[in-house]
Amino acid sequence: MTEISLKSAYDKVKQLCNEDWKSIAAGDAILDLVTISLRFLNDYCHITDLVSKVPGKAYFTFQQGNVFARPVNREFFIVDPDTVGEFWGEWYSGQIAPGNFTKLSYTVALAPCLAMEILDRQNKKGPATFFECYVGHLFAKSLGVNPSKKAILPVHGRPVRLTMDFLFDLGEKHPKVHLPVKMSTRERVVQAWSHQRLLDSAYGKGAFHGVMVLFSETKLDLKSHEVVEICVPDQWLTYQTLLAQMDRIYYFDIPERYQALTNSYPDVIVIKQFAEFFKEIDEVVRS
Amino acid sequence: MTEISLKSAYDKVKQLCNEDWKSIAAGDAILDLVTISLRFLNDYCHITDLVSKVPGKAYFTFQQGNVFARPVNREFFIVDPDTVGEFWGEWYSGQIAPGNFTKLSYTVALAPCLAMEILDRQNKKGPATFFECYVGHLFAKSLGVNPSKKAILPVHGRPVRLTMDFLFDLGEKHPKVHLPVKMSTRERVVQAWSHQRLLDSAYGKGAFHGVMVLFSETKLDLKSHEVVEICVPDQWLTYQTLLAQMDRIYYFDIPERYQALTNSYPDVIVIKQFAEFFKEIDEVVRS
Repeated sequence: MTEISLKSAYDKVKQLCNEDWKSIAAGDAILDLVTISLRFLNDYCHITDLVSKVPGKAYFTFQQGNVFARPVNREFFIVDPDTVGEFWGEWYSGQIAPGNFTKLSYTVALAPCLAMEILDRQNKKGPATFFECYVGHLFAKSLGVNPSKKAILPVHGRPVRLTMDFLFDLGEKHPKVHLPVKMSTRERVVQAWSHQRLLDSAYGKGAFHGVMVLFSETKLDLKSHEVVEICVPDQWLTYQTLLAQMDRIYYFDIPERYQALTNSYPDVIVIKQFAEFFKEIDEVVRS
Repeated sequence: MTEISLKSAYDKVKQLCNEDWKSIAAGDAILDLVTISLRFLNDYCHITDLVSKVPGKAYFTFQQGNVFARPVNREFFIVDPDTVGEFWGEWYSGQIAPGNFTKLSYTVALAPCLAMEILDRQNKKGPATFFECYVGHLFAKSLGVNPSKKAILPVHGRPVRLTMDFLFDLGEKHPKVHLPVKMSTRERVVQAWSHQRLLDSAYGKGAFHGVMVLFSETKLDLKSHEVVEICVPDQWLTYQTLLAQMDRIYYFDIPERYQALTNSYPDVIVIKQFAEFFKEIDEVVRS
């Protein structure tokens, strides 16, 4: 029953986002999926504390039988669907407190992934696709324009179409936005910087602002129940210096070592909490 | 029994390559593994014809019960281990006919992968690692120098180490060689061009020659037994034009659509049969 309603709510999110990313209907479908997911997690799973190896962060997760979902940062997750609905309404009316938006966005992004993981461990694509839908919706709504997923690049005199995560065209007066979105990066992150480089090479530096949105970098050891963060700060600094520049990198839960990286190189690489985007939106995308 | 001897022969290849890629001992270990693999394929598996959807190519594979290995191009594969041993000796003494080297190298690269796939379907890393060992050995032996797997890149005043497939230092008088090696590319290929770009940005264009070595791009549908080649020529042309330049791309079995790509853009992207490298080695790496 839950599995079927979760699947149909997920399909609806995908369908409505693809029809109109910025629509209220897409937002409503996202909230529906989150509510169904939280009810399933509350009613059919139990909470298990995890062993945090990350200083200053505490994690738990939801468990059903011997199936574990991914780690949840205790600081940000809202277990109660009614509170999520309330904060969601506040966000829509532009009245939400910044700390509550951080919690809301963390919970909305994560809850469906947790439910999907418990119901179908093999489905790696579902969580990634949902996260893309949610971030795509937030940006489209905030920028007032729908994204494209196809870059058109001039290559030896003809236009070549290349699939990228999201591209936003904000009109002639503003740079466009290249928005790579990933739940976590691992080795695939080089693709985001490479796409930025392709856009820079084709249209000149500054034609596309690079804004990368990531969820977290946690890894759960299923035997020891230990949570670590997998980070490669030297690689990131190298990509940012020698491959292309991202204007901003936003995390829903900034990994400790990337926070240290941006503290050490504040003029080279800017990594911030996701909620910050909505405070600096004009500076980031319309400058 | 076969599984144990295959595993120990594979471990020996890895160990001896890491000790000295260009050594005869590493070469002997590779031939041993290939011989054991071919004996296993001949004695414990049977040959099944596949349905080729690639014009001009015919494929078969080895099958044990309902486990299938990957597709084998009939034109290049040598089933008989004695013939492989003979050709191997001719190659070592520099006496092999070019067509026979093409067959030898195709068979050596593929036979252990087929055996590993049948004995342990889940082991994706084994075939990739063995292919890297074989190509690393061939290049190290031909260039007379061992590769490194760590690039050192200057980033904001300090040296950052980044893992790449292979880097060869041919002395002060020659450019170095950046050698990405993959059995097949799929979406991961952007990494190879990105690494080339990092080297170009750090040391100037031409400091590292980019030579990419790939096996094939076949995909087997396990239900229909159909073999197709998965190619993204527009993506490749874009990477080669806007990201970085590979001096050469060599395939053990060139996919039809990449052959067409290099025919259409011979001045932009050069894709050749792997055996060609040994005819043009001085032009490619010492010019």
